[in-house]
Amino acid sequence: MNGDQLTRLLSMVASGEVSPEEALGRLKHMPFTDLGFACADTHRELRQGFPETIYSPGKSAAQIVEVARSLLDHSAKVFATRVLPEQVEEIRAAFPAAYYNAAARLFVIGDLNHRDSLLSKYRCAVVSAGTADLKVAEEACLILEYSGVSLERIFDVGVAGIHRLLDRTELLMKQDCLIVVAGMDGALPSVVGGLVACPVIAVPTSVGYGAGSGGIAPLLTMLNSCAAGITVVNIDNGYGAAMAALRYATVSHDPV
Amino acid sequence: MNGDQLTRLLSMVASGEVSPEEALGRLKHMPFTDLGFACADTHRELRQGFPETIYSPGKSAAQIVEVARSLLDHSAKVFATRVLPEQVEEIRAAFPAAYYNAAARLFVIGDLNHRDSLLSKYRCAVVSAGTADLKVAEEACLILEYSGVSLERIFDVGVAGIHRLLDRTELLMKQDCLIVVAGMDGALPSVVGGLVACPVIAVPTSVGYGAGSGGIAPLLTMLNSCAAGITVVNIDNGYGAAMAALRYATVSHDPV
Amino acid sequence: MNGDQLTRLLSMVASGEVSPEEALGRLKHMPFTDLGFACADTHRELRQGFPETIYSPGKSAAQIVEVARSLLDHSAKVFATRVLPEQVEEIRAAFPAAYYNAAARLFVIGDLNHRDSLLSKYRCAVVSAGTADLKVAEEACLILEYSGVSLERIFDVGVAGIHRLLDRTELLMKQDCLIVVAGMDGALPSVVGGLVACPVIAVPTSVGYGAGSGGIAPLLTMLNSCAAGITVVNIDNGYGAAMAALRYATVSHDPV
Amino acid sequence: MNGDQLTRLLSMVASGEVSPEEALGRLKHMPFTDLGFACADTHRELRQGFPETIYSPGKSAAQIVEVARSLLDHSAKVFATRVLPEQVEEIRAAFPAAYYNAAARLFVIGDLNHRDSLLSKYRCAVVSAGTADLKVAEEACLILEYSGVSLERIFDVGVAGIHRLLDRTELLMKQDCLIVVAGMDGALPSVVGGLVACPVIAVPTSVGYGAGSGGIAPLLTMLNSCAAGITVVNIDNGYGAAMAALRYATVSHDPV
Amino acid sequence: MNGDQLTRLLSMVASGEVSPEEALGRLKHMPFTDLGFACADTHRELRQGFPETIYSPGKSAAQIVEVARSLLDHSAKVFATRVLPEQVEEIRAAFPAAYYNAAARLFVIGDLNHRDSLLSKYRCAVVSAGTADLKVAEEACLILEYSGVSLERIFDVGVAGIHRLLDRTELLMKQDCLIVVAGMDGALPSVVGGLVACPVIAVPTSVGYGAGSGGIAPLLTMLNSCAAGITVVNIDNGYGAAMAALRYATVSHDPV
Amino acid sequence: MNGDQLTRLLSMVASGEVSPEEALGRLKHMPFTDLGFACADTHRELRQGFPETIYSPGKSAAQIVEVARSLLDHSAKVFATRVLPEQVEEIRAAFPAAYYNAAARLFVIGDLNHRDSLLSKYRCAVVSAGTADLKVAEEACLILEYSGVSLERIFDVGVAGIHRLLDRTELLMKQDCLIVVAGMDGALPSVVGGLVACPVIAVPTSVGYGAGSGGIAPLLTMLNSCAAGITVVNIDNGYGAAMAALRYATVSHDPV
Amino acid sequence: MNGDQLTRLLSMVASGEVSPEEALGRLKHMPFTDLGFACADTHRELRQGFPETIYSPGKSAAQIVEVARSLLDHSAKVFATRVLPEQVEEIRAAFPAAYYNAAARLFVIGDLNHRDSLLSKYRCAVVSAGTADLKVAEEACLILEYSGVSLERIFDVGVAGIHRLLDRTELLMKQDCLIVVAGMDGALPSVVGGLVACPVIAVPTSVGYGAGSGGIAPLLTMLNSCAAGITVVNIDNGYGAAMAALRYATVSHDPV
Amino acid sequence: MNGDQLTRLLSMVASGEVSPEEALGRLKHMPFTDLGFACADTHRELRQGFPETIYSPGKSAAQIVEVARSLLDHSAKVFATRVLPEQVEEIRAAFPAAYYNAAARLFVIGDLNHRDSLLSKYRCAVVSAGTADLKVAEEACLILEYSGVSLERIFDVGVAGIHRLLDRTELLMKQDCLIVVAGMDGALPSVVGGLVACPVIAVPTSVGYGAGSGGIAPLLTMLNSCAAGITVVNIDNGYGAAMAALRYATVSHDPV
Repeated sequence: MNGDQLTRLLSMVASGEVSPEEALGRLKHMPFTDLGFACADTHRELRQGFPETIYSPGKSAAQIVEVARSLLDHSAKVFATRVLPEQVEEIRAAFPAAYYNAAARLFVIGDLNHRDSLLSKYRCAVVSAGTADLKVAEEACLILEYSGVSLERIFDVGVAGIHRLLDRTELLMKQDCLIVVAGMDGALPSVVGGLVACPVIAVPTSVGYGAGSGGIAPLLTMLNSCAAGITVVNIDNGYGAAMAALRYATVSHDPV
Repeated sequence: MNGDQLTRLLSMVASGEVSPEEALGRLKHMPFTDLGFACADTHRELRQGFPETIYSPGKSAAQIVEVARSLLDHSAKVFATRVLPEQVEEIRAAFPAAYYNAAARLFVIGDLNHRDSLLSKYRCAVVSAGTADLKVAEEACLILEYSGVSLERIFDVGVAGIHRLLDRTELLMKQDCLIVVAGMDGALPSVVGGLVACPVIAVPTSVGYGAGSGGIAPLLTMLNSCAAGITVVNIDNGYGAAMAALRYATVSHDPV
Repeated sequence: MNGDQLTRLLSMVASGEVSPEEALGRLKHMPFTDLGFACADTHRELRQGFPETIYSPGKSAAQIVEVARSLLDHSAKVFATRVLPEQVEEIRAAFPAAYYNAAARLFVIGDLNHRDSLLSKYRCAVVSAGTADLKVAEEACLILEYSGVSLERIFDVGVAGIHRLLDRTELLMKQDCLIVVAGMDGALPSVVGGLVACPVIAVPTSVGYGAGSGGIAPLLTMLNSCAAGITVVNIDNGYGAAMAALRYATVSHDPV
Repeated sequence: MNGDQLTRLLSMVASGEVSPEEALGRLKHMPFTDLGFACADTHRELRQGFPETIYSPGKSAAQIVEVARSLLDHSAKVFATRVLPEQVEEIRAAFPAAYYNAAARLFVIGDLNHRDSLLSKYRCAVVSAGTADLKVAEEACLILEYSGVSLERIFDVGVAGIHRLLDRTELLMKQDCLIVVAGMDGALPSVVGGLVACPVIAVPTSVGYGAGSGGIAPLLTMLNSCAAGITVVNIDNGYGAAMAALRYATVSHDPV
Repeated sequence: MNGDQLTRLLSMVASGEVSPEEALGRLKHMPFTDLGFACADTHRELRQGFPETIYSPGKSAAQIVEVARSLLDHSAKVFATRVLPEQVEEIRAAFPAAYYNAAARLFVIGDLNHRDSLLSKYRCAVVSAGTADLKVAEEACLILEYSGVSLERIFDVGVAGIHRLLDRTELLMKQDCLIVVAGMDGALPSVVGGLVACPVIAVPTSVGYGAGSGGIAPLLTMLNSCAAGITVVNIDNGYGAAMAALRYATVSHDPV
Repeated sequence: MNGDQLTRLLSMVASGEVSPEEALGRLKHMPFTDLGFACADTHRELRQGFPETIYSPGKSAAQIVEVARSLLDHSAKVFATRVLPEQVEEIRAAFPAAYYNAAARLFVIGDLNHRDSLLSKYRCAVVSAGTADLKVAEEACLILEYSGVSLERIFDVGVAGIHRLLDRTELLMKQDCLIVVAGMDGALPSVVGGLVACPVIAVPTSVGYGAGSGGIAPLLTMLNSCAAGITVVNIDNGYGAAMAALRYATVSHDPV
Repeated sequence: MNGDQLTRLLSMVASGEVSPEEALGRLKHMPFTDLGFACADTHRELRQGFPETIYSPGKSAAQIVEVARSLLDHSAKVFATRVLPEQVEEIRAAFPAAYYNAAARLFVIGDLNHRDSLLSKYRCAVVSAGTADLKVAEEACLILEYSGVSLERIFDVGVAGIHRLLDRTELLMKQDCLIVVAGMDGALPSVVGGLVACPVIAVPTSVGYGAGSGGIAPLLTMLNSCAAGITVVNIDNGYGAAMAALRYATVSHDPV
Repeated sequence: MNGDQLTRLLSMVASGEVSPEEALGRLKHMPFTDLGFACADTHRELRQGFPETIYSPGKSAAQIVEVARSLLDHSAKVFATRVLPEQVEEIRAAFPAAYYNAAARLFVIGDLNHRDSLLSKYRCAVVSAGTADLKVAEEACLILEYSGVSLERIFDVGVAGIHRLLDRTELLMKQDCLIVVAGMDGALPSVVGGLVACPVIAVPTSVGYGAGSGGIAPLLTMLNSCAAGITVVNIDNGYGAAMAALRYATVSHDPV
């Protein structure tokens, strides 16, 4: 509730249109739906322009279905991330038309063809270092694609064979935003960040073993990138990277 | 060197305007200046639209001066970050008109009034949690201001007194990009990220003590933010956050 | 055994009522029952006013039953925490009237209706950030409820949608003690701690992934909380938080 | 601003006593004073009943003086923690009657004799393991004493000579709240927590060397205490422990 | 091979009893048996007076049997530690008279009644804090008992109920050596070490959860023990503690 | 106070020799001297046979002198460890005959010639890997020597030149107890532990740099030693190793 | 593509043999095969002289087969490392003549008899500390053997029985390169590195438990080795060690 | 002492040329010089072909001089690494002709012109990422140069401006061995390792700040390098990298 709305409500109180008690009630009426186990934040799309997303870990399939139904009252489309294989059947039974990607463990529920037309001119690429990073990269790709972004996949271009990356330089330079996904040494965002001027979101993955495993090595590499202006999300957080890319789409400035 | 330039060069070889040997030389002639101890990357501004910046740690004052002179051959203005107090005098002797901010340890050298006019409509705010975070916040502020961005400072609005932040909600919502600086519990970006739709760059600071000191606690908090799409730079890296904000200014898409 | 009791015993030795040998025996007779594999501390409730609790990991179902029986000789009710699903049947066979909560993995054995009447005026709330934190929150809730505390559940009010929490401010302010449970960024106790004056016990949960996973991120956030006077228990330790809340109920001072 | 105040304000708008614009202004007028570099939260004492405290690191002596002056407009007394030795003279020049304790690095500024009379019946003890822990223990002691609490110091009673502690059992049992300060193995709170029923706040100190130094060893010990219901604050955080003890004084329940 | 033996061998060369080539062979003939996959160190018992022990992880049941057979050529008895449940049957088939303890995962193979008579006067106690530590404590107990040591088990005497431990003070003081096993806060060795003068070997266990889990918390506690002269073995290393206790049995000095 | 003493005291109460009140006083009179800032544990030598030792960090020179004086009332000799260079003069002024070793930062105060004659037959060696480990090794050496142990120094025999160690095999085998001090890779105790049957106390030192610096690398090496029965003390804890060696001297068993 | 090739191509453009457009195409035609999910780097063998290797984690059996087929178009032989047991059957069905080693989880596919004859004079030994390190050691051995190196296996020669290693000194000294594999204390490379002058590649393994488990302890030991010039690869990385040994085979200098 | 020498010695015993006692003495006479505080390993150069090096930390200037003198009895030249600035004068007084490099903190003492002529054909390059890495890089350079290696310095070619590195590809490919020094993200060795077939020794430096500072980030990056066969030395260990490069010079195999 912003200042304009508050002023308007207060004017209605002043004019007698709304009683003080009713105004108090409206001010208190928060824009979320209480489901008992979860407060679905139904106004978030309005406030932030983000796609509705259910973070599935810790929720039963039945709970995911219930939250999805509640959110679909307000939105055309809902994502559910990190859905477990054993939950897929029950969710699909509730939403037969839903799309599920097993690699990304992502459900897209609702009107699959609904896109934000404003986003179609926004060009993003998801760049990944190795085939083992594909699951994380694909989670980011699908959220961006289903949100309406013009997406490019540039996969398996790790720095140990630098010519594979350099060959795509022109394609990289055409994008508005890059998500760069890498495990092991996590060196790819540093090289990419030195080639392009656009935003680079680095996603470390838990690919690798031994010292620095679980994604710690690429996370630290990316935080210490010698290419200026690289930002980082948490390990394996393809969803977070996609959401960050969608935040950048809101920048209203004329491009430099 | 992009594809067009390469085609043109090859055409000149075909037409005899340029000999193969000379073409080889041009292809090899890299756009950097060899200073013996450092390869100043003089074409970076052209390639990336970023301000020229010297990372001072490990360099003597004399070396900083020499690199700055080399970069000023190609750029109107140069930043030097993390300059030590004992180096200030020698650098100022070489560049009497330069600006130095002791809190941010930042030098701005060259034409101080030169701004990128395209950036003046780009609105950024730097939000900080406590007075101890000011040094890092100010480093980000100065780089953005001297680059020409319309900057807002929103300081000392930590979450332990949440009303201080909520009072600025409208101001926060007007920005194209937010840099949120916080030490100790690092909780501020999560709250801010839930209030706005624009990009949020979180900067953990090394403020605090005990377990998680040195900035580890706020870094982990920010990587695990429950507000979607927050991205993070390294601890105390105000410079990196400013550079990321400048990358977002290049997004050419119409805002959503 | 306090000073008065010791003086009395010594007086009985002086008067010949008790022989030196017998006095030695009494002094040595410690108030615990030796079960061979475990010394059940049967006098703890008397000494500390705490509910009897069996920490189940490392014990077989048969051992849990045996310890519970021994403790029920002295107490009306016994809790068993972290009981494994495969142990439930055997324990229930021994105590058919016992209550088991699968989410909290908690058994309540004995007289379920027995409450400490003094505690009914003690108002506690358990506040949780997300649905994934429910298991830990529920463990705390059940121990407090079965101990007789007046309990309020305020769930799913994480800081990324700060309006959900602010809407409950009045309810929060009415409590004598708050337990705040959060995973991921663990920012909730900082915001709550700034809103209320009563004790706040922060419980980090192992919800989240990537850097700082396993609860390390919220633990560090909470230890570094910028809201003064927050105290912390170990990760996922809902039981410990409830026990701490019960300790506060012993404070005899008139409230400020 | 609570519900009653909001209803009253809205009624005044309805009755025409207050215009909508003025009501908006009042709702927006947050209870803090903007000093440029810091938002002094002048209403905190009112809201939380806590003593006003300035966390000094990162502030100049001049800034500490300025914030203290601003806070003294609303409070009788102000604490400044972790004041550096080189800042003492300048602060004392501004507040000649102020008390400074060099070991605890604590300033008490304002009316030193002003105490909260309600707190005089609240009995707290600060228990410490070794002489090296005194600095942290003393910070907690002074804040409690100057706030008006009835304080007991029980120092140098580490567990390696357990008889020193057991000798004080009766004294320990008489307290409403215990703060237990220990470095090295951090074992003292576990033993104390098994002897008493009242709240126990454990403070790890950075005393010790080698593995687990900097306070990590006692912090982990205390988080893993086998005595139930122990809570923990950050390493060397004597101030935080005192603030937590003051929070417990607000519990209005009749003691069990 | 010590100096005397070398002198003797060289004398035999000088006298012609042994040829230089044969002497070279003897010098080179190392006291181990090559089994292809493992060099069984058959002379270790002779050299060190230790019981023969097979560390099972990474070995198949067949390999354990083969190494055991090889060692039994030189020793009366062999231990196999950390044997997996699924390997028990195959090993027992090869050694029907062997003893297996499932809690300690320990096999004793060979002449079970063979004891080192010199060790019968050596009094050791294994002290443990909680029932969850029993597996590790029992591994130490069995190796000491089967080696012939006079063993005392003092279990479930954690510091949270300090009277349970103090009641055993006399028994503790009668021992030549104490092994103290504890998880969670690991505080027990500090208290025990303050009560007795004899060697105290501290064994951290991986009992507990959250921060410092996996035994890190008690390990750090024990390394930082404020009781002087406590030594520590690795987490869950009951075997190592028993071997250390056997090393102390070799001290030939008259006791102080 | 042991059982015999308690029985005797109780008998005296029974016979009227001692009144109950006086007995209570005696039972309460703990064997420590309260110095205000520190409880000097004056009976420890009696109870444990250990030398009196003052851990200096956190104490002023004046406090060290005061504690030393108090302890010398009961003991012939007192050690003060980790004395800072700037404290030496003041302490020597108070005890002109005291011995100070600058490398080990150790003071020996009192009757320097007083030795425990029983210890003269107890043979210990301190083995060190490199010259940088000498400070820690010397702390252990001096405490053992001044306690009366027959001491051997075997220095600079690191494993990178294994022949230096093997040359001393006979000398190593003659000892009752070995303290092995090593930094960097910490490999020396593993090799030594395989050569001898006697107790081996491993002391990691903070020698080295980079990953695992501060002594973490050798500490982990030693805890994971593949030579069975090695025990470990904390990093740089030469004092603790010496105290452990003195504990072994109390073993009364005939050597194996 | 090196300078000579570029000059030649440019000359052909100058002479009209090749059109500018075609030259551009050739320059852009990178030597990798795009399989959709993976860019097989088919020219790597040519460029680096290394064996073709597929890192299997994250790839399905079908994908491994497809990449292997693509690589076999250019190479005589392909390795697949870390193949899961459940993938073996499907891969063998595609390549019936392939060799699979279950311990090393390694597939060798293609012409098994094809060796690089130049490598037959290159003598390497793989040295391992314990039987539990065999899996890692064997991975290194097989890659070296199938590449044509003259390989020696020296297994189970850990430092706790130093004579087992010293007995092989002559064999060690004959090698051109040593790979030393060790878990637990990781001390073996330090001793070996002091005995030989040739390159020593240290491989820490994840053998062991407790503090420093997962291979951290031996990794840190090896990085801190007091034997100069030891280099280290990641934990359990037998493949990387073999590849490093093959890199050394390219050194063209006459041996010192 | 190898097998041939042992056989010869034994033959002389057999023939009476040498008495058994004398043979024992010779066998025992180890090739090191006992200086009291350090065993200078005077035969190491003979055994390993390495330059003599004194690791200075923990040694006084006088001790460095004494060890250097002892080593110069057997060698033409001695290095002293990590010499402190305050030690330089005293050492130079003893060796006026010695060379000291302040950046690398390295002393070269003895016959500066003495080089190993065999090494002159061995081509090494030291590659560094940024100017802040120069100190570590220079330590490696000087040891290699003074040992006689043909050295190339390729400095300031970090991956954020990848064209600076690619421009040197031909030079990189001509080397027998590469030492690659990098701090911050440590990505350089991965890119270099993909360009060349020769050995690559990666040296992480402690350049950088925030998470992963002190060199941990580049160390983990390098251990996880996706370029196969990269080996790593400890953080800032330029000396170790040079020694490893010298070990590779001993490989006698014809290059592949």
